[in-house]
Amino acid sequence: MACILDRVNGHKDLAAMDDAGLKALADEVRSYIIECVAANGGHLASNLGTVELTVALLAELDPEVDRIVWDVGHQSYAMKILTGRRQAMRKLRQEGGPSGFPNMKESRSDSFGTGHSSTSISAALGLAVSRRLKGAGHAVVAVIGDGAMTGGMAYEAMNNAGALKEDLIVILNDNEQAIARNVGSISEVLERIRFSPARRKIENGLKQMLSGIPVIGEKARQAGHVIKRSLKGLLLPKMLFEDLGFTYIGPLDGHDIKMMRNAVRDARKLGGPVLIHAVTKKGRGYAPAESDPDSYHGTGPFDPSTGIKRKGNGDGFTDVFSRKLVDLAERDPRIVAITAAMPAGTGLSAFAGRFPGRYFDVGIAEQHSLTFAAGLAAGGLVPVVALYSTFLQRAYDQMLHDIALQGLHVVIAVDRAGIVGEDGATHQGTYDMSMALSAPGFTVLAPMDGEELEAMLEWAAEEASGPVMIRYPKGNSVSFARKGPCGPFVPGKAEVLRYGKDVALICEGPSASEAMKAASALEREGISATVMNVRSLKPMDEDAIREALCGHRNVITVEEGVARGGLYSGVMLLSKGLAVNVRPLSIPERPIRHGRRTDVLGKLGLDAEGIAAAARDMVVGDGN
Amino acid sequence: MACILDRVNGHKDLAAMDDAGLKALADEVRSYIIECVAANGGHLASNLGTVELTVALLAELDPEVDRIVWDVGHQSYAMKILTGRRQAMRKLRQEGGPSGFPNMKESRSDSFGTGHSSTSISAALGLAVSRRLKGAGHAVVAVIGDGAMTGGMAYEAMNNAGALKEDLIVILNDNEQAIARNVGSISEVLERIRFSPARRKIENGLKQMLSGIPVIGEKARQAGHVIKRSLKGLLLPKMLFEDLGFTYIGPLDGHDIKMMRNAVRDARKLGGPVLIHAVTKKGRGYAPAESDPDSYHGTGPFDPSTGIKRKGNGDGFTDVFSRKLVDLAERDPRIVAITAAMPAGTGLSAFAGRFPGRYFDVGIAEQHSLTFAAGLAAGGLVPVVALYSTFLQRAYDQMLHDIALQGLHVVIAVDRAGIVGEDGATHQGTYDMSMALSAPGFTVLAPMDGEELEAMLEWAAEEASGPVMIRYPKGNSVSFARKGPCGPFVPGKAEVLRYGKDVALICEGPSASEAMKAASALEREGISATVMNVRSLKPMDEDAIREALCGHRNVITVEEGVARGGLYSGVMLLSKGLAVNVRPLSIPERPIRHGRRTDVLGKLGLDAEGIAAAARDMVVGDGN
Repeated sequence: MACILDRVNGHKDLAAMDDAGLKALADEVRSYIIECVAANGGHLASNLGTVELTVALLAELDPEVDRIVWDVGHQSYAMKILTGRRQAMRKLRQEGGPSGFPNMKESRSDSFGTGHSSTSISAALGLAVSRRLKGAGHAVVAVIGDGAMTGGMAYEAMNNAGALKEDLIVILNDNEQAIARNVGSISEVLERIRFSPARRKIENGLKQMLSGIPVIGEKARQAGHVIKRSLKGLLLPKMLFEDLGFTYIGPLDGHDIKMMRNAVRDARKLGGPVLIHAVTKKGRGYAPAESDPDSYHGTGPFDPSTGIKRKGNGDGFTDVFSRKLVDLAERDPRIVAITAAMPAGTGLSAFAGRFPGRYFDVGIAEQHSLTFAAGLAAGGLVPVVALYSTFLQRAYDQMLHDIALQGLHVVIAVDRAGIVGEDGATHQGTYDMSMALSAPGFTVLAPMDGEELEAMLEWAAEEASGPVMIRYPKGNSVSFARKGPCGPFVPGKAEVLRYGKDVALICEGPSASEAMKAASALEREGISATVMNVRSLKPMDEDAIREALCGHRNVITVEEGVARGGLYSGVMLLSKGLAVNVRPLSIPERPIRHGRRTDVLGKLGLDAEGIAAAARDMVVGDGN
Repeated sequence: MACILDRVNGHKDLAAMDDAGLKALADEVRSYIIECVAANGGHLASNLGTVELTVALLAELDPEVDRIVWDVGHQSYAMKILTGRRQAMRKLRQEGGPSGFPNMKESRSDSFGTGHSSTSISAALGLAVSRRLKGAGHAVVAVIGDGAMTGGMAYEAMNNAGALKEDLIVILNDNEQAIARNVGSISEVLERIRFSPARRKIENGLKQMLSGIPVIGEKARQAGHVIKRSLKGLLLPKMLFEDLGFTYIGPLDGHDIKMMRNAVRDARKLGGPVLIHAVTKKGRGYAPAESDPDSYHGTGPFDPSTGIKRKGNGDGFTDVFSRKLVDLAERDPRIVAITAAMPAGTGLSAFAGRFPGRYFDVGIAEQHSLTFAAGLAAGGLVPVVALYSTFLQRAYDQMLHDIALQGLHVVIAVDRAGIVGEDGATHQGTYDMSMALSAPGFTVLAPMDGEELEAMLEWAAEEASGPVMIRYPKGNSVSFARKGPCGPFVPGKAEVLRYGKDVALICEGPSASEAMKAASALEREGISATVMNVRSLKPMDEDAIREALCGHRNVITVEEGVARGGLYSGVMLLSKGLAVNVRPLSIPERPIRHGRRTDVLGKLGLDAEGIAAAARDMVVGDGN
C-alpha cells in the first residue's frame, strides 16, 4: 500500500518530488500515522493536521542543518516518519521505541526537545541568535499551535524576537481549536481573521498592489496568498503579530503543500521575524478524528477501521474527582473550578456542563490559573484548580508567592502525579510533592484509592482554610487494600493497613496497595511487614511514623516522586537518633523514559514485586 | 511642613477635597516618601511616579470596599501613607515596620499581596469574578507598569479577562521604562503611541465625533482625553490591548489627578474590561531620581537634600560575578549573557557595555530567559543567565523541561540566594537549592566567598558540559576564613576549613565564614569544631561528608534555604546506618518577614552566634 513512502529514505528524496508526488506521499504518511497510533495509542488529531505542513518543510529545508522546533511536539510524527524513524514508529511510545515528542538524543533532525506548551519560539530564538554569532545561514523555524499561543511564554518570546530582529520563521498552526475549544481573546481575534468577510475583498484588492513589490510580490500573488508587509494597518487592524514586530503572511491553507513551500521560501527572503499563519484541520483525513478531535487528541489504541477505542481499565482517579467535585458544588455555591485547557483530561467537563458560570478554562496558562484562583479565594470563593503534575511546574512561583505566602484557600487537584507511562520524560509527575511540601502552609494529601480521594476533596473544599494539594496518578482508583469504609478525612492521620515486625512499608498514594500485595508475598516467605498508608504528607502523622521507626529495624518509604524533598525526606526528619535503616523507593533524579505505566513502575522497583524485593533484601541482609 | 497630610485620617477625607487640595496633598505625600526612603532605603523612583495616580484612586474609590491591586507592589507607598500607615512608614521595611509591598495581613486596604511582577491582572480578575458570583458591585482595579506588561503572565490574564468580560479596570502605568530601559516590541509599540505625531491630529479630529456619543462623549472631551470604543482601528492600528478585548482609554497624563479621576469614573460607566493608559515619570519631583531613575529604583538610605547614598559595604558577590564574567567572555566568544530586566541588579551592565551583541535583556520574562538560553546552548553557545533566586521560581518548569532533561550547558547565576533582608517575604531566596538539586544532571555550587565564585564561574563556563547553577547571597563576598589561594574549582570536592572533634559544621556558601567565627568562640569554651565548606552541593563530596558523619557524634548543617530537599537532605542521605545526630540550621518553611539581612539571619540562628548556640546545645546536651 505504501508505495511512495517505501522509496523515501530521507528528506532529500522529497526535494526531488513534484507536487503530485508530495501530495501522494502525504496521504501515505497520514495512513501510516493512523496505523501506528491505532496500535500504540498516542496523539492522533494533531498529527493528522500537520502532515502537509511537515512535507512542505522537509521539501524546502534540510532538517539536519536547518532547525525546526515543534511546539509541544505532539504533532511531530510525520517528521519522525520522514527522517529515518519510519520502522521504529511501529513501537511508538513503547519501551525501546521512539518518543511521542521530539528528542535531540533520538535524531539530529529533532532540533530541540519539546513536550510542554509554548516553548518553541524561545528555543528557536536562541538557535537563531547562535546562528548569527557563529556566522551560519541556515533557517530556523518554530511551529506553534493557536492553543500554545495562549501561553504567556510564547508572548514573552514573540516580544523578544520582534525586538532582536533575527531571521526567524514562526508558523502558527491554527487548527481552530487547541486541545479543547480554544478560549480567550486571542482565539476570537484569529476567528475574526479567518472568517472576516472584509478580508477576502481586501485581499483581492491587494493582489494588484502586491505584484508591484519587487521580488516577492509576483510570487506571492501567484501562490495565492497575501504578504502584508508595510501594508499592515490597511488589512487587519487587529493584527497582534505585527504589534509584536513580526511580518505576517497569511492566512494560508496549511494543507496546501505548494502554498506552504512558497510561504517558507518567501519568509526566508523577507528576513527578520516572519509569522506564517497556516490554517489546518485537526484530525484531517480520518473521519472519526475530524468529527471528534478532542477525543482523538491523545488516545489509547483503537480499531483503525472503525475508530472504536479499546476499553479503559475501570474507574480512574480522574473519574472519581470529576463526579465528586460536581456533588460538592451542588451544595456549596462557593466552589468554582479552573482548568488550563484540559477540561476532559482533568475531568472538569462534567463541572463545566453543570455549572458553566462557575467554570473557567483559562487557556494553556498555568501561571495565570493559580493567581486567578488566588484572587478568587481572596474574594471569598473556593477555587479548585485541576492540573497535571508536570504542568504545575509552570506555576511554582504562583503557588509559592500568590497562594502559599498569603495562606489562601485554594485547592490544587494534581492529576497524573507520578509515572505517566507512554508520554515519557517530559510528562512525568515527579516534583509536585517536593514543591508543595516545602511551601508555607500547604496541606499535601495523596489518596490510596478513589474513596479516599472523595473524602479528601470534601475536606479540602469544606473544612480546610488554607491551601491544599491533592495528588493522584493516572489510572485505576480501585484498591483491594481497602477493608472498611474510608470515613471522613482527618488531616495528619496515617492509616496502618497491617501490622508486622520485620519491616515497615511507609507508602504514599496507591503504592500502599502495591505494598499490601508485597506484604502478602513476603508473609509466605516468613517476613512480616507493617504497611502504612500515609495519606497526609503534610501535616504528617509524626506519632504513627515515629512509632513505625521505633518498632522496626527496617523501614522502606514508597512514593511516586523524588525522595529529596518528598516523603522520604519527611520520614528521615523523624528518624533522628533512632537505630533504624530507612531506604527510599522513589522516582530517581534522572529522565524517566516512556513505556507502559505498570512497566515503568516495575523497572523502578515501585510495584509490589519491587517493594517485596527491597524488603527481602533489607531483612535478609539485615542492617545493610 | 506637612499641613494637609496632618489633617488626612484616611481616604474618606480625600473625597471631600478639591482639585487644588488634592494636588497639594500629593506634593506632601511625595516629600514624605522621599523622607521615609532616605531614612530606610526602599523603592523610590517608582513610588514618586504614582503619587497622583494613588491620590486619584483614593479620591474616587473606597479601598476597603473597592479592590485595588498594585502589580509588583513597589509603588504602593503613597497608598500606605494615605490608608492609615503614615506614622508606621517611618519604620518602612524595618523589623516591626510596614512591608515595602502590599500585604493583606497589614491592611484591609491591601487587596492582594504582590512583590513579583505581572500578577495583578490575574488576581484582579479573580476578585472581579468573585464579586459577580457574590452579587456585589464594587470596583476592581489593577495597576501595572509597562515593564510588568512584558511578563507572559500579564498577557495570559489579559487574554482571559478580555474573554470573560467582567468589569475590570487595568491602569497601565507607563513610565517609559521599567526597572531598566524597557526592551521588546511592546515597549516600541508604547513608544510609538506616546510620540506618534499622527496621534494628536487624529485625537483632535475625533473630539468632535466623540462628543456625539451619549453619556461619556462629552465628559471625555471635557476631560481632554479620548475614549476609543468602537472607534478602534481608526486610531491606533497597533493597539494590542483592544486585540485582547479591552476598551482603551488614553494615553493620559498620569500626574493629572483630575484627568485620572475622570478616567476611572468613565471606565466604571463603560463596564467590561477597560485599560487606562497613564503616562507617568519615574522619580517625578525629585531631581536626583528623575535624572537617574535606575539608580533610585531600589536604593539604600541616602541624604535627601543631595541624593547622595550612604556607602555600601565592600565588594559584593554581584560585583565579583560582574567582573569575572566579562573577563571570561574576553577570551571565550561562546559566552553570552541574559538578564530578565535586571542588568544592574544582577551585575550584567558591564557585560552589556562590553559585548552588546552577546548580551540579551529579554524583559521581565524569566520563563523565556531560560528556554531562550536552552536554545542558545543547543546552538553551541555558552549562555549565562543571571537571575535573583526568588525570580528563578518563575522558570522552574523551563529549568527542568528545557535545560535539565536535555542536559544543556546553561549556567544559571543565582543572585540574592537566601535571606534578602528588607524586601522581605516575597523576595527571600529560599527554594533555588531544592529546585536544582533534584533536577536531573544539574551541578549545584555555592561559593563561600568571591574568590571561590570566580573559580566556580570559570569552571562552569569553560569546563562543564551540562547545566550548572551557582548561588550566592546579597552582600559582601570577602571572607576572612580563606587561608590560601582558592585555586581552580573541582566539582564534588568539599573543603575542610578546620578540624575538631566535638561537632562538625557542614556549611553551604558564606555560612562557612560564620561557622568559622562560631568555631573560634566554641574553642574558647573548650568545644572543638570541624568546619566544612561544602562548595559543591551536587555532586556532593560524599567521602568527605561521610568522614565527618563518622568522625563526629554531632553534626550541624548550615544553609540559606529550606532543609527539605537542600543540603540537610543530602547529608541525611549519607548518614544511613551511622550513629550520628544531624541537626539542620536552615530557612524555616514559613514566610520570613523583612528586616536587615544580618538581623534576619540572626533571628533564624544562621549567624555565628546561632551556629555556636546550636553546637553548644548539641554537645553539652549530647545526643539530644
